Amino acid sequence: MPAIISLTTDFGLKDGNVGAMKGVIWSIAPHVQIADLSHLINPQNVHEAALVVARAAPYFPDGTIHVVVVDPGVGTERRAIALRLGQQYFVGPDNGVFTRVLKRAASQGWPVQAVHLTRPEYWLPRVSAVFHGRDIFAPAAAHLAAGAPLEALGEAIGDLILLPLPEPQRTPSGWRGEVLHVDHFGNLTCSIRREHLGEHPDATIRIAGVKIHGIVGTFGERPPGELVALYGSSEDLILAVVAGSAAQRLNVKPGEIVEVDY
Amino acid sequence: MPAIISLTTDFGLKDGNVGAMKGVIWSIAPHVQIADLSHLINPQNVHEAALVVARAAPYFPDGTIHVVVVDPGVGTERRAIALRLGQQYFVGPDNGVFTRVLKRAASQGWPVQAVHLTRPEYWLPRVSAVFHGRDIFAPAAAHLAAGAPLEALGEAIGDLILLPLPEPQRTPSGWRGEVLHVDHFGNLTCSIRREHLGEHPDATIRIAGVKIHGIVGTFGERPPGELVALYGSSEDLILAVVAGSAAQRLNVKPGEIVEVDY
Amino acid sequence: MPAIISLTTDFGLKDGNVGAMKGVIWSIAPHVQIADLSHLINPQNVHEAALVVARAAPYFPDGTIHVVVVDPGVGTERRAIALRLGQQYFVGPDNGVFTRVLKRAASQGWPVQAVHLTRPEYWLPRVSAVFHGRDIFAPAAAHLAAGAPLEALGEAIGDLILLPLPEPQRTPSGWRGEVLHVDHFGNLTCSIRREHLGEHPDATIRIAGVKIHGIVGTFGERPPGELVALYGSSEDLILAVVAGSAAQRLNVKPGEIVEVDY
Repeated sequence: MPAIISLTTDFGLKDGNVGAMKGVIWSIAPHVQIADLSHLINPQNVHEAALVVARAAPYFPDGTIHVVVVDPGVGTERRAIALRLGQQYFVGPDNGVFTRVLKRAASQGWPVQAVHLTRPEYWLPRVSAVFHGRDIFAPAAAHLAAGAPLEALGEAIGDLILLPLPEPQRTPSGWRGEVLHVDHFGNLTCSIRREHLGEHPDATIRIAGVKIHGIVGTFGERPPGELVALYGSSEDLILAVVAGSAAQRLNVKPGEIVEVDY
Repeated sequence: MPAIISLTTDFGLKDGNVGAMKGVIWSIAPHVQIADLSHLINPQNVHEAALVVARAAPYFPDGTIHVVVVDPGVGTERRAIALRLGQQYFVGPDNGVFTRVLKRAASQGWPVQAVHLTRPEYWLPRVSAVFHGRDIFAPAAAHLAAGAPLEALGEAIGDLILLPLPEPQRTPSGWRGEVLHVDHFGNLTCSIRREHLGEHPDATIRIAGVKIHGIVGTFGERPPGELVALYGSSEDLILAVVAGSAAQRLNVKPGEIVEVDY
Repeated sequence: MPAIISLTTDFGLKDGNVGAMKGVIWSIAPHVQIADLSHLINPQNVHEAALVVARAAPYFPDGTIHVVVVDPGVGTERRAIALRLGQQYFVGPDNGVFTRVLKRAASQGWPVQAVHLTRPEYWLPRVSAVFHGRDIFAPAAAHLAAGAPLEALGEAIGDLILLPLPEPQRTPSGWRGEVLHVDHFGNLTCSIRREHLGEHPDATIRIAGVKIHGIVGTFGERPPGELVALYGSSEDLILAVVAGSAAQRLNVKPGEIVEVDY
């Protein structure tokens, strides 16, 4: 069974840099299947990358290696790391980009193993100061895919950098959270999740001076153009305009406050 | 020989949703080759998806499985379906997105087999109301790739939803059709095809108040900046600006009327 | 070990044309690994494609076949060609797009072999006048991947089209060059390279009326918003705004003059 490597970066799609990473990977591990998760993470947005990889990773099989390169500190003292969380691997900079997958591992009681990538024999021979995705992370991931044990790649470490994650707060009448992500359709992913709200189909959601009444089951229950709340495919509360863009309608960005009363 | 799955969606490239589909596919069928056809179909534009998949599908080998997820009715009563058309398979919502490949199958006299995807054992264990691409279509396609027979996936059906396709009309002096698609270069694909016009290199094309004289063989026959008509790689009439954008020059969109006189 | 084909085009990502090329390739060589380098080369920008493929190619293993389709002369008398440069192959139009990889081959003393693609048995049966990427280049590359020798694809040729490459010039106080490329982040790649400048950490760079003092080692040495000069991952001089866009800050494009004094 071929190993799988997923790639998440802020490199964009026009300059060939993702392609160079694939060349490096296949030079070391020719049979690997490579899946692009996103190369359109907003530049340097570690929070967004953390969310994208945490949402997609559960749908990959055991043994998958997720490489995440959103790395404003490339070439500085920030560490390059590799993790084993349960049955999957993660490779990238130690800047908090793995906060959400680490949190899931903790909540599931999965074994966690982390190493600082200190062994240059698992990198390219020449390492530039500005492109560790190609020179360190891709080859390290490919060596994992080719069978190198995690502990061979570097020293065990335990004190990983974590991002503060905005947790929704209880209010007298419900929950107060924020917008975490605006997707391709302009749908707004909120920090409030089904596990917080439960089933309150008649809840009222307030955002940017607008009220949404009720939580629907899916987009098609309401006519095009209507602003709706529903649970997304990862059980997050989503605010959406049917066949439209809630981000444009409401003119909001990540960080915008969302309140739910029920 | 590894099976091939192609993916066509309106999910965009930034949120990791296409990647999650690939994880699902490789979890079930690890050796599958996956080709992205487009993830930039205009949101909910079933017509555009129907055109893109119909143009690319003939270039894939027998046995290829084309997954198309442009699905405004996700989670409603619209059916999830899988088709065998000749020697290829198609998986997606029953909303007309397969109209053009069904039409080709009919015109070629290919055998057509359709099933309603009703067997949850070929889906992910948990099915969200908003992401059947990941939870139903990807796993169903992967099971086909892994050898499941089409008829195992659900009940045979025959009454598929079809889109009305705008056919060009004969006029006293030629043909009247419309713009179907604007491509990345700004070239305009028309509903009038070589099979309608035949070889009339001296035809006159009228669109948006502008006349184009003659149909050239290829772009390089005329200087940069000139508006030309030619036959595209799928034998459609194409209106283009050499080294430029006809869509910008003419300020037109799909639906714009095109008339040809000869 | 599966063969690898890389693809570089100006086709964009929305119309399914790259997917059709992959279908053609896998119809002929089902096990090939395919890497997209870029499909967002600016339309008809042969210079940009030449740069992107030359930067990524060295990171692919021996035997890789790089297909480059930025081809404003498609369907005209311009030749379709395939090259062997050292241990890699290149397939595309004879319009200068291989100038940079040919220059590297010459500087490294690699063997160079070139053929004019004249044997239709290695193409699709029907060749359109506007999409040789699908009809000639993809099948020719796939036949190479499947083991056809280069010389089988056509007649040996030697007089390849080369682009004039802007070489930086010595000045009394340093070097004068130009911006070659603006990347996804808005970083500016200059024609001046480390091999010209050497280590002059205290050099002064002038561009668009602005002075940059010194060449830093990596982005993280300076605060967000600062305009810096550094060497990129291919040893080119790069002008960048830390966590920002130098192209926007300076409002410059490829061709802008850059001067370095030391």
